[in-house]
Amino acid sequence: MNWAVIMAGGSGTRFWPESRRHHAKQFLNLFGRKTLIEETFDRIKKVVPVSRILVFTAENKAASTAKLLGVPRSQVIGEPLGRNTAPCAVWAASLILKKDPAAVLGIFPADHFIKDRAAFTKILRVAYEQAAREGMPVTLGIKPDRPHTGYGYLELAEKKATVRGTPVFFLRRFHEKPGLPRARKYFRSKKFLWNAGIFVWRADCLLETARRELPSVFRAAVRIAADGFSQQKIKKIFSRIPHISIDHGMMEKLPRGILTIPASVGWSDVGSWATLRDLLTVDKDKNLSIGTNILVESSGNVVKGSGRPIVAVGLQDHVVVDTEDAVLVCPLSETESIRKIVVELHKRKMHHLL
Amino acid sequence: MNWAVIMAGGSGTRFWPESRRHHAKQFLNLFGRKTLIEETFDRIKKVVPVSRILVFTAENKAASTAKLLGVPRSQVIGEPLGRNTAPCAVWAASLILKKDPAAVLGIFPADHFIKDRAAFTKILRVAYEQAAREGMPVTLGIKPDRPHTGYGYLELAEKKATVRGTPVFFLRRFHEKPGLPRARKYFRSKKFLWNAGIFVWRADCLLETARRELPSVFRAAVRIAADGFSQQKIKKIFSRIPHISIDHGMMEKLPRGILTIPASVGWSDVGSWATLRDLLTVDKDKNLSIGTNILVESSGNVVKGSGRPIVAVGLQDHVVVDTEDAVLVCPLSETESIRKIVVELHKRKMHHLL
Repeated sequence: MNWAVIMAGGSGTRFWPESRRHHAKQFLNLFGRKTLIEETFDRIKKVVPVSRILVFTAENKAASTAKLLGVPRSQVIGEPLGRNTAPCAVWAASLILKKDPAAVLGIFPADHFIKDRAAFTKILRVAYEQAAREGMPVTLGIKPDRPHTGYGYLELAEKKATVRGTPVFFLRRFHEKPGLPRARKYFRSKKFLWNAGIFVWRADCLLETARRELPSVFRAAVRIAADGFSQQKIKKIFSRIPHISIDHGMMEKLPRGILTIPASVGWSDVGSWATLRDLLTVDKDKNLSIGTNILVESSGNVVKGSGRPIVAVGLQDHVVVDTEDAVLVCPLSETESIRKIVVELHKRKMHHLL
Repeated sequence: MNWAVIMAGGSGTRFWPESRRHHAKQFLNLFGRKTLIEETFDRIKKVVPVSRILVFTAENKAASTAKLLGVPRSQVIGEPLGRNTAPCAVWAASLILKKDPAAVLGIFPADHFIKDRAAFTKILRVAYEQAAREGMPVTLGIKPDRPHTGYGYLELAEKKATVRGTPVFFLRRFHEKPGLPRARKYFRSKKFLWNAGIFVWRADCLLETARRELPSVFRAAVRIAADGFSQQKIKKIFSRIPHISIDHGMMEKLPRGILTIPASVGWSDVGSWATLRDLLTVDKDKNLSIGTNILVESSGNVVKGSGRPIVAVGLQDHVVVDTEDAVLVCPLSETESIRKIVVELHKRKMHHLL
């Protein structure tokens, strides 16, 4: 049966002051409608029954996440510590295999945006079918629209099949985030896709790979999944296992290979306020304005209020965010530096703003 | 005896959202210390006893102004309508002459900034002495530091005298706000000073001039000063007299001329947020920050909070003002356009922000 795991453990700083330590990107209502985790959940449930979608998040967010998604608390697993995606995936596979030995498991980051939901559903169905039949993991690759240096890349090998109009390729290999010259080469070649971190894999194959390639992670996950350990005990076990991702820790080592489906679905990892402007509908002056704001002779801005109107005059290409307890102003070209605020807040001991 | 009138009737829009309809520039604590009207009052009282300083302001601000300055309510006169400076000056002269036939009356805008208070005091003493002795008005002229097109100019004639190191000139004539080419010519010639709107004049001469040159204003002012009219009656009388300034309505018509004292006192009419940055001490990155703000890789900004921290990252030469009910963001080069906000607020019927 189809199962899914949403990984919602991240704690971003790039959307400060909207995102905070205990209120990461996936829980933000950035789009003035649903949160990214709700949208992720809604996309998955087209292919996986709600009762078979698990969510992994920080322990202190588990109850609120269950409430937000309207699922039983037992479907939300609180991670005691962040250990990247492999330990989480192995733990999930161990839990699920106990209930369903034929489980096919999709693994999804909680904080991505996908514009074309119908296309995504179609691709995801094919991914689950291929993963079930072939026993190989299926990964989704995003067609690049520019030579981005912030993502890992998937290099395509030959086509395996076309299923109901969806081509499925063999993966040649994973590539780390490239420098700009290499990113340009990848972009031109058309054989490289962005690694979106979405995988579908049979739980038994996943676990078997972990047993072979990541034995310490395997043993820890199986122990945790088997016993009713306390959070403290789980934390102790978790603290000893390495930080490692699914692709580096397991997939790269598979002798039988990996499948990749190119996904043109309007994907974005919503990496910054600048991305938001590009994703959402903007006014005739290319402003993205959320709230009752007044923009006079201003263009290309992201302006997000929280009650109080934000008034901009002659402002070009900036982000302005007003929250209850802080106001941010930053040129959109500088949003990568927003993380420096968090450092500064630590330094000044302004912990209430973190 | 020396008397003074502070004219505090203005209602600026250039400091929105800090300035509002009922909270004009002179009442703002722009500098994080005293309001401009308090600073004006403090400067004058070095030369004029507190009991002989009158304040003219909007009727609904009279009580709070008296309280702010710590003067009896009777020293603050509520104007029913703004009619520029001449009606106000004539009314003041009428009131004062009843108490002191030899009164010498200084007239001061409430909302200017003067950095060098000692130099100003010295010049003001000379102005009062000259005005008392000569019966001619004495006006203060500011040495231009650039070819400004936003001020009227005073053209100097020959020097009359030097009093305790302060040169006193005859005035050749007043000039209206010039265009840029003319402003450049004025700036180069060194014979032109900015008209700061500060005058000292014997009350009897002022009133005599009004009787001759502005008879309708004269009659109205004398009537109002003579009788205990109701505000409604005063309003009715005021509504019939013309808008006219002291310099255009009276001084320009004087046969015996006018005296001018060049004043190098660090004067500013505090015309915009950009001016504030130039006036006040700024940090090493040329930011003027009022409040607990965090400026990362930012320079040349004016950032004024009201509790909440304002956080700027990579921000250059902008003004950011946070108030209880609105946030403003504007490049400092565009602050002239801030008045357009007020128009926009009217259009959108957001009267609570006016």
